[in-house]
Amino acid sequence: MNIVLLEPEIPYNTGNIGRTCVLTNTNLHLIKPFGFSLDEKQIKRAGLDYWKDVKLYIHDSLEELIKANKNSNFYFATTKTKQKYSEVKYNKNDFIVFGPESRGIPEDILNKYKENNITIPMTPIGRSLNLSNSAAIILYEALRQIDFDFS
Amino acid sequence: MNIVLLEPEIPYNTGNIGRTCVLTNTNLHLIKPFGFSLDEKQIKRAGLDYWKDVKLYIHDSLEELIKANKNSNFYFATTKTKQKYSEVKYNKNDFIVFGPESRGIPEDILNKYKENNITIPMTPIGRSLNLSNSAAIILYEALRQIDFDFS
Repeated sequence: MNIVLLEPEIPYNTGNIGRTCVLTNTNLHLIKPFGFSLDEKQIKRAGLDYWKDVKLYIHDSLEELIKANKNSNFYFATTKTKQKYSEVKYNKNDFIVFGPESRGIPEDILNKYKENNITIPMTPIGRSLNLSNSAAIILYEALRQIDFDFS
Repeated sequence: MNIVLLEPEIPYNTGNIGRTCVLTNTNLHLIKPFGFSLDEKQIKRAGLDYWKDVKLYIHDSLEELIKANKNSNFYFATTKTKQKYSEVKYNKNDFIVFGPESRGIPEDILNKYKENNITIPMTPIGRSLNLSNSAAIILYEALRQIDFDFS
């Protein structure tokens, strides 16, 4: 499975999602630019002792990543659709894309891949779930569907 | 639905789980003692502007809470069982219990309620998922099963 973070802003979230990826043998793709540094000193300071085990891929462009993986499904997590994350049938090599914490995935990308927009149901209080929780929820639904095959 | 945190240690996790609870209309039960203070000044400092909306219940004893809710199922999240969290059939008023971050739910409690121990599958690397992610994953599996009925 693959998690994609588009222009992540908060290092704690990316670190946490990295931990979830290590524990599930999931690839983590980060699309530049980031709101933090990934240099060794910063990683060490954040106590991310598992970071070296993250299967990490850094990209300049989401569109390039999509083009390079034409045979995989890409899903786009957003609050702006009605399609629940649990209504989708996931395959093992799918990619689940999350936008920056403060603004989510840009509208033009959401519109281009409208059928693959997915959302986590929640009560309407004007806030949304923490990014690392959202990633964990959708990733584990996908893993549940493939019977927790971590190979 | 109900989330129970037994002697939580890390304020960031409890804060984050509170946010997930607000967004899903879930009750949050905390069993004393805590590894942090819940006074107004601390809450404000942590930026938990939604904390006032958490349906928060504070208890002195887990056993008392269980006794007082004899008609509900209690599930106990642990790495020490083979029963997957997704194999259980959840009801709307169930309680999902999580132990302290550093040591998990004590063995005597796990043994007493063995059939209701549940685990999140992960690869064996000697660490486990962040507490707030674990709570989000199991809570959303329970909510998925009851068709995201937040009432």
